[in-house]
Amino acid sequence: MESISIGDAVLSEFLGTTVLLLLGAGVVANVILPKTKGFGGGWLLINFGWGLAVFTGVYVAFQSGAHLNPAVTLGIWAAGKDEFAPGVEVSAANGFLYIAAQFAGAAVGAALAFLTYKKHFDQDADPGIKLAVFSTGPELRSYGWNFLTEVVATFVLVFWVVISGNTPAQIGPLGVALVVVAIGASLGGPTGYAINPARDLGPRIAHALLPIRGKGSSDWAYAWVPVAGPAVGGILGGLLAAAVGWVA
Amino acid sequence: MESISIGDAVLSEFLGTTVLLLLGAGVVANVILPKTKGFGGGWLLINFGWGLAVFTGVYVAFQSGAHLNPAVTLGIWAAGKDEFAPGVEVSAANGFLYIAAQFAGAAVGAALAFLTYKKHFDQDADPGIKLAVFSTGPELRSYGWNFLTEVVATFVLVFWVVISGNTPAQIGPLGVALVVVAIGASLGGPTGYAINPARDLGPRIAHALLPIRGKGSSDWAYAWVPVAGPAVGGILGGLLAAAVGWVA
Amino acid sequence: MESISIGDAVLSEFLGTTVLLLLGAGVVANVILPKTKGFGGGWLLINFGWGLAVFTGVYVAFQSGAHLNPAVTLGIWAAGKDEFAPGVEVSAANGFLYIAAQFAGAAVGAALAFLTYKKHFDQDADPGIKLAVFSTGPELRSYGWNFLTEVVATFVLVFWVVISGNTPAQIGPLGVALVVVAIGASLGGPTGYAINPARDLGPRIAHALLPIRGKGSSDWAYAWVPVAGPAVGGILGGLLAAAVGWVA
Amino acid sequence: MESISIGDAVLSEFLGTTVLLLLGAGVVANVILPKTKGFGGGWLLINFGWGLAVFTGVYVAFQSGAHLNPAVTLGIWAAGKDEFAPGVEVSAANGFLYIAAQFAGAAVGAALAFLTYKKHFDQDADPGIKLAVFSTGPELRSYGWNFLTEVVATFVLVFWVVISGNTPAQIGPLGVALVVVAIGASLGGPTGYAINPARDLGPRIAHALLPIRGKGSSDWAYAWVPVAGPAVGGILGGLLAAAVGWVA
Repeated sequence: MESISIGDAVLSEFLGTTVLLLLGAGVVANVILPKTKGFGGGWLLINFGWGLAVFTGVYVAFQSGAHLNPAVTLGIWAAGKDEFAPGVEVSAANGFLYIAAQFAGAAVGAALAFLTYKKHFDQDADPGIKLAVFSTGPELRSYGWNFLTEVVATFVLVFWVVISGNTPAQIGPLGVALVVVAIGASLGGPTGYAINPARDLGPRIAHALLPIRGKGSSDWAYAWVPVAGPAVGGILGGLLAAAVGWVA
Repeated sequence: MESISIGDAVLSEFLGTTVLLLLGAGVVANVILPKTKGFGGGWLLINFGWGLAVFTGVYVAFQSGAHLNPAVTLGIWAAGKDEFAPGVEVSAANGFLYIAAQFAGAAVGAALAFLTYKKHFDQDADPGIKLAVFSTGPELRSYGWNFLTEVVATFVLVFWVVISGNTPAQIGPLGVALVVVAIGASLGGPTGYAINPARDLGPRIAHALLPIRGKGSSDWAYAWVPVAGPAVGGILGGLLAAAVGWVA
Repeated sequence: MESISIGDAVLSEFLGTTVLLLLGAGVVANVILPKTKGFGGGWLLINFGWGLAVFTGVYVAFQSGAHLNPAVTLGIWAAGKDEFAPGVEVSAANGFLYIAAQFAGAAVGAALAFLTYKKHFDQDADPGIKLAVFSTGPELRSYGWNFLTEVVATFVLVFWVVISGNTPAQIGPLGVALVVVAIGASLGGPTGYAINPARDLGPRIAHALLPIRGKGSSDWAYAWVPVAGPAVGGILGGLLAAAVGWVA
Repeated sequence: MESISIGDAVLSEFLGTTVLLLLGAGVVANVILPKTKGFGGGWLLINFGWGLAVFTGVYVAFQSGAHLNPAVTLGIWAAGKDEFAPGVEVSAANGFLYIAAQFAGAAVGAALAFLTYKKHFDQDADPGIKLAVFSTGPELRSYGWNFLTEVVATFVLVFWVVISGNTPAQIGPLGVALVVVAIGASLGGPTGYAINPARDLGPRIAHALLPIRGKGSSDWAYAWVPVAGPAVGGILGGLLAAAVGWVA
């Protein structure tokens, strides 16, 4: 791949994460908001929808390495790699810019999903349903165990991302998309698999700011879990990859 | 790829779009018409069916660039590319021929799907169900918001198509098929994702002309939305790709 | 690919079709026989199961070109190709041997699926359910329209197979597997998409011969439809590919 | 691929099988334990979840050949191959180490899945449900027929694995993942497709040892079936591949 400037990398991360959340929040809206074509489509539809959102977003942002996720950026740093993308060295400043672009893209993407489903948000529905389009929440609230679940799930993602450049597949962005489907199907049951601080907190801020009819709490008490859990899991994934010597 | 004459390109677009609608209208028929094997199969089956219809149609039409969609043809023009396909320059005349072939193929494909499901169309069913095999309709009718939804969904498709030639994947037509599944799963909830003027208007004309038992209105009041929305979305997708400098 | 002797090609077609029916009949058994893990899994499970049966069978039989289907063998002949596989020329004798191997493999594969699900066949169930594990049947019986449906569906398959060698994908047997999922999702609603004379008649013979508890009629009155329809559709697919000059 | 030491191969098999069971047991937990996001998601979700668990685990363990399964290790031995992985010769000692790593990884992975779903295991549920997250069990108990089903299903897997290196696909670990989905969809109905002695017995030991609230029997009477059946099926798969001369 060609080298990229940090400015282009920021644009790439921003647009990729925008598409990620537009499609990712969109599939949740389609399955749980009233009077949609996909209403009641179930977990498999949400899983595949999120996986394909990753697929599309990774293509959009491939020039910047398609992190789309602060946990990935942190994991690459923890693994001791030299570059976030060709020509973009690993540094605190570049990491900060990547992560800022991811948060901004996630908030904008969720807002676009809101506009796309505006008439459905205008219907009567439980405020928790409307929040769930934006951000994750646990089925059984237990901050410690919920945190652990997010750590484990993000660990799998980032460990895979950091080592997968060494493997013999040639399917490109489909690989990480399928791993995200895998994690959602397998480890998403307790918390809804944020596995990405930007994916959860960016849209939660959008939820707090947008004029959503009949909206309720943005559930700030839970907001730290899908930020801290993925951050810790991503760092652990990068560290283990480095420890076993498999960093791509 | 080898160069192709405009005559062969028109044949390619026609046959590709015929297969697209034969399979695309077919999966809707299978899920919603009475007494089919797939009755009640749900949104995921429709999503994957349409995605795989794109997959098959893109293979059939790969020689002409497999637009299969006036929004793609318009987006390529808006992005400032030189050729619609190898040897076929971007011009008003060639664009018109591509789009005409797409509309003709879509109408013929839908008519073939009608013949394939003829005995099921002969069953008693709501006229709206029978129309839905051919053309899209909104769950909550609001021309402005429905238009916006089609703009956003088509924007994602065409932006992806215009930039994806630069990306490192090697999965061929599977890529665009998965993006169409993504858009259907995520953004198809309000309007059923026409995202293609030919896909919607061609079959609507077929619906108006064919001797379908117990058919009702072809819903011409809505017909402009899935034509104008995708056209605008496609042009915006091409323009943004050009603006950020990512045209493949 | 390397040349192959006709003897090895026959073995390849036989084993590939055996696996095709073992898995294909198996997924139907899993969805419709009593007390299975997959009971009630629906059309999407059957669709993907059959597509993946094709995927696995094509790998097994790749040395002989992985026809696995007399309609494909006939379509290749109708398209005017020189070889069924590298080193195996198109001739009546070789075509007969391919087709005989496919019928034999289909019957054996269905018998293996019967053994795998033996305890479930021993349960009480409608005789039509037990037959449906082996062979297709229409939802609305109308020999003429059922025949047409099989012609159209098989035409799409064989046209795709004959032209797809020219296309730029690199996903190997996954391509044809996805086209079979597409056809099942979209065109399988009326008749259950035999699209393969061996897939239907071979297992029907096995059904007639095997000691299945509480079995009923093998429905010989319908048996010609999923043989003649696919044969005609396959020949038409080969002829159209030749007419437009797209034979790979 | 590069040569690998037996020590690194053991680490690779251990981590790959850990991820396999973390995700594989996880998807079952998500579908059958109380109050999960995926509760009631059905057989298709379990099938795809397991297939994607294989996909992820094979990437993790690609350096050691990604057996992840004693039946594969035995099948490679039975097929008469020279190496388990580049630089790791086929020998009793190396085979023992591979298999030991697989059992250990499977037990650890299941334990991690237990921790991930800890709050859901704490809910009231039938003890058989809680065991089913760890290990397989038949729908209709009949040791002979259950054994046969596991033999046939594992035979298909290992035969495919041993011959697939000769085939023209380039989709890497996705191939075996899809074959596992195929086997689950088609042949998993009677017994839940262990098709892997480590996958079943390792977690069963974990089930016996872990402090699971309200757990019941580990069903040791059945435990030999998903060990012996896959072992026999794998050896037969390797032998047939050798007999027909298709060993990759």
